[in-house]
This record gives sequence, structure tokens and C-alpha cells, in this order.
Amino acid sequence: MRELTKYFEEKDDVSLGKLLKEVENQTKDSIEILKASSSRKGKAHIIGITGPPGAGKSTLVAKLCKKLVEEGLSIGVVCVDPTSPFTQGSLLGDRIRMQELAKLPNVFIKSLATRGNLGGLAASTADVVQVLDAYEKDIILIETVGVGQIEFDVLEVSDTVVLVNVPGLGDSLQTLKAGIMEIADLFVINQADRPGADESVKDINQMVRESVDKSDWRPPIQKTVATREEGVEELIAHIHQHKEYLVQSGLWKEKRQRRNITRLNHSILSLLSKRVDEYIREEDFVQQKIQEVKDGKLDPFTVSHLIVNNLAEK
Amino acid sequence: MRELTKYFEEKDDVSLGKLLKEVENQTKDSIEILKASSSRKGKAHIIGITGPPGAGKSTLVAKLCKKLVEEGLSIGVVCVDPTSPFTQGSLLGDRIRMQELAKLPNVFIKSLATRGNLGGLAASTADVVQVLDAYEKDIILIETVGVGQIEFDVLEVSDTVVLVNVPGLGDSLQTLKAGIMEIADLFVINQADRPGADESVKDINQMVRESVDKSDWRPPIQKTVATREEGVEELIAHIHQHKEYLVQSGLWKEKRQRRNITRLNHSILSLLSKRVDEYIREEDFVQQKIQEVKDGKLDPFTVSHLIVNNLAEK
Repeated sequence: MRELTKYFEEKDDVSLGKLLKEVENQTKDSIEILKASSSRKGKAHIIGITGPPGAGKSTLVAKLCKKLVEEGLSIGVVCVDPTSPFTQGSLLGDRIRMQELAKLPNVFIKSLATRGNLGGLAASTADVVQVLDAYEKDIILIETVGVGQIEFDVLEVSDTVVLVNVPGLGDSLQTLKAGIMEIADLFVINQADRPGADESVKDINQMVRESVDKSDWRPPIQKTVATREEGVEELIAHIHQHKEYLVQSGLWKEKRQRRNITRLNHSILSLLSKRVDEYIREEDFVQQKIQEVKDGKLDPFTVSHLIVNNLAEK
Repeated sequence: MRELTKYFEEKDDVSLGKLLKEVENQTKDSIEILKASSSRKGKAHIIGITGPPGAGKSTLVAKLCKKLVEEGLSIGVVCVDPTSPFTQGSLLGDRIRMQELAKLPNVFIKSLATRGNLGGLAASTADVVQVLDAYEKDIILIETVGVGQIEFDVLEVSDTVVLVNVPGLGDSLQTLKAGIMEIADLFVINQADRPGADESVKDINQMVRESVDKSDWRPPIQKTVATREEGVEELIAHIHQHKEYLVQSGLWKEKRQRRNITRLNHSILSLLSKRVDEYIREEDFVQQKIQEVKDGKLDPFTVSHLIVNNLAEK
């Protein structure tokens, strides 16, 4: 890994795969890779694709890739599966679809799974996206499942968030209302050949209209039948339009700046945490105090002050 | 706030309200309140109640309170609304129900809303629960909406998590699968007089059976019609049984220990963050470096090392 910059200049898939593996596994070299990719990144359009399981996200991603490649663009796909052993079943189908995707030229695919550490997964996603960006991918698609905490962290990396649903949302729309809907820039009703598609469009339309309008961008709602490639070109047009909007409104730059600062903050906190861990490991009396906090005999605030003050004096 | 311990000994609702307000607003006195409540806490049974909007959680909470008070128990209710302006509508109904609840003796209610800072909301919830616990409430009910990241953070404080659903889950069960289901200790199908209740019970039953069995506790599924108080006593029996299980398995103690350590870690990080902020504010050249990171001219890792090293040398 000594000739790291070479990897960035060669730009072949094997080198990229090696870099991403280091970054995913947070090896010693990963910081160097992130440093090197830091100044090279910033040009890719990063698109998060989310929605409930079974909405057809993988098929849609495959079709999006196909069309985008035809436009002459290079694509990175990051598949993030934050689900636990509970849902092992759903992964297999996705993997098969992904293998088909991998045959496309100019498409590089990276899968990330949880390994039980959700916070780490969001960080890995950000790192992987950064390296793909530095590798001059024009478009990076992040595919994730619409559940829980991790989704938001993963999507924070995106410029454009696409929320994929299927006809017949019914009650689940109620749930959507309060969460993910607000961060969606584009809505897709996939499997739009099923009954109830127009009703779902109407429902979402109503909710978009009711929402507090924070920006000049009003999220479009696109019907698709991904398996037959219907509506995919229109969706791509919306995606390009959203980029246009981001650039002209200044949000494109702003989002990148914000992400850089977030990354700095995370890095500072992670370094400080390491120092604290080392300090605690060295000091027996601190370990004893921590045990007292654990047992509820001592309050955490007294001990946190003690640790932070001692650490500063070292 | 000088005679803080008095507040804890008087144990009237007015004093409690004052303490909670300080804690919620994170005033200077709040650390003293948390310190004082730290050694007094640990006895309450903390129950998180979650589920999608419209599942009837507030009504169920009201009925639970009524029955629990009849058992001679004192109750604290914390209503956590992590939703944004998007769902202002749903709050009003809840507030009216809450007013009815407030008329019950031995029930103290505290509402927490986001104010745009989700991370802070989870922290506030933990603080408020701790003070209620120190105020010798027997049972603390945390009611929250089943959406997104915040839910998990809020529920981390609970001993027992109750997931409330309604008949006709359909597609949304797929989504549930991957997230919240794994942390539920009890399932409720509310509005069980609606069609499809038995089917929902069967569906959940199947999923519980399919799940990787990590413990000796198999989550029961209780049908309720909260408006008519049906099934509420049975639900309470399950809640008491779960406490029994926690105590006998050692999880009761373990969860408390884990929470104490989490609190210590948060407190350390928050103190360190404050130091970092102060340091940055004092040093012009660091601010300049941060601007360069923001603009993508400098990588965050170089600057985070610089900040942490300089901070240690101060």
C-alpha cells in the first residue's frame, strides 16, 4: 500500500477493489487512502435509493445503471444492507440481481453488510463513497433498505434521495409521513402496473403539498415498472434536474461543505475516544471508579470530569 | 436550586416539574440534578411503548396507567414526539388524551418534543427518566412513535419494549421485520375488534418463531381493544412477567449497568467536545484550517490529528 497514489492514477477495478477493502476493514492504511481521496473527491452525483423491502429497488438500480451507462457515465453502486440475521432471506435475491449488474461495463459494485455494528456501517458507507468519488465515478448509487436509524445516517451522504414505493401503501403511508418522506427529493411508485398506482401517486402528492415547504424544489413522483424499464428514463431526467437545482441553488456546494465538517468532527471524536480508552487502560484507579459508576454507586458526571481533567493534564 | 436534595425529599409534583424542566432545558443546575438523582435511581420498571402513528398508543397508555394506579403503583409517563412539523396534526389528539390522563392520581406526565435536535431528544429522555426513577416512580412509561433513528435511542433506556400494531399489517410487516421487531419484548395487536386481528397475531407469531432465539424470553402477543379496556389487564400481567424474567435472568441488573456506562461515555464525549469547541474558538489558525477542510482543500484527518494533539499539549 506504499504506492497508494498509483492506485488512484491507474483507476482499474482491481485497484479500486483493493482500496475499498482496506477502507471497509478500517485497516491501518485506510486513513492514508481516505486522506489521498479527500482532495480528489467532490465531483460525483451521489444518489441514495431507499424504500421498504420488496419495492424492487435492486431491479430499479440495475435499470438505472444500464441507462446511465448508455449516457456515457461511469457508475459506482454501494449496496448497504443494515438488516440483521432476521432477514437473511432477502439478501440472496439481491445478490443474484447484483451479479447481473456486475456484467455491465463502467459499473463498479460494492456491497456492505452490518456485522452487527450499525454506526460503523454508516461510516463505512461514507468512506466507500468517498473513494468511489475520488475514482472519478460520475454517479454513485447507494441502495439501502428503508428501516430504522441506519437509513438516515446512510442517506446523509447523498445529494439526491429517491424513495421507492409500491402501489397500495395504505397504512404504511402514515408511518412514512413522519420519517423518511421529509428527506426524499424524488418519489417513485414502482410496479406501477399493479392496481392502486394512481391512488398512491395521489396520496404522496397530497402529502408533498401538505408539507411545510422549505425549498424551491418540489419532489416529483414518478411511476415505473422497473422490470420492463418503463419510466426509468423519466426518472433519470428528474435525477439530472435535481442535480441542476442543487448546483444553481448553491446546495451542491453547501452539502459538500457540511459533509466535510461532519467528517472532521467524527474524526476528532474518534481520536479523542481512542485517547480516553488508552488512558483508562493505563490507570487502575480510574477503572475502579468506572466500576463504581457501573454499579450505580458513583454518578457518571463526577467520573467523566475526573477523566477529562486528568487527560488534559497528561 | 441550592436546596436540591429537598426537592428529592419533598416528592411533590410541583418540585418534580421544576426539576424536569431544568433537566429538559439542560440548564447549569441540570448536572447537579442528574448527579443527585444518579444514586437514587434504579428501582423503576421502565417500559417503552412504540408503534406506528394511529395504532392507538396514547389510549393504551392511558388505560395502562389507570389499571396500574389501581394496583397501588405510582407512574411516570414520558411522551416523546420525534416527528417534525410534517405531522403537527397528530399531536393535538394526543394532547387531549394526555390531559385526561393527567387527572389520574399518582400519574405524572412529561412531554418532550424535538426542537429540531433528535440526538438531544434521546439524551433528554434518558435524563427525564432518571429523575422520575429517582423520584421513586414504580413504573415509567415512555411513549414514542415508531419511526426512524430516534426510536431506537429512546427505547435503549427501556427494560421492556412493547410494540403496538393494528390488524392488517400487510406489507408493513415486511418493514417491521428488519428493524424494531428484534427489540420488542411484547407485541400488542390493538383495535383487535377490527378484521384481520387473528391473522396479524399469526403473522407476528411466525416471525417470532423464525427469529434467531437469543434468549429464554419468547415475546407474547396480546390482542387489545384499548378504548374498551379489553386485554389491558392481560398486557399488564405480561409486563410484570417480563420484569420477573429480567430480574431472574440477571438482565435487570445488567441493563442498568450498561446504561450507567453509556451515560458515562456520553458525558465524557460531551465534555471533550466542549473542550474542542473552546480550543477552536481561541485559535485563529485552527479556524483557518477548518475552513480549508470545509472547502475540500485539506483532508479532515490531518486537521483532526492537529487539533487533538494540540489540545493534549495545552
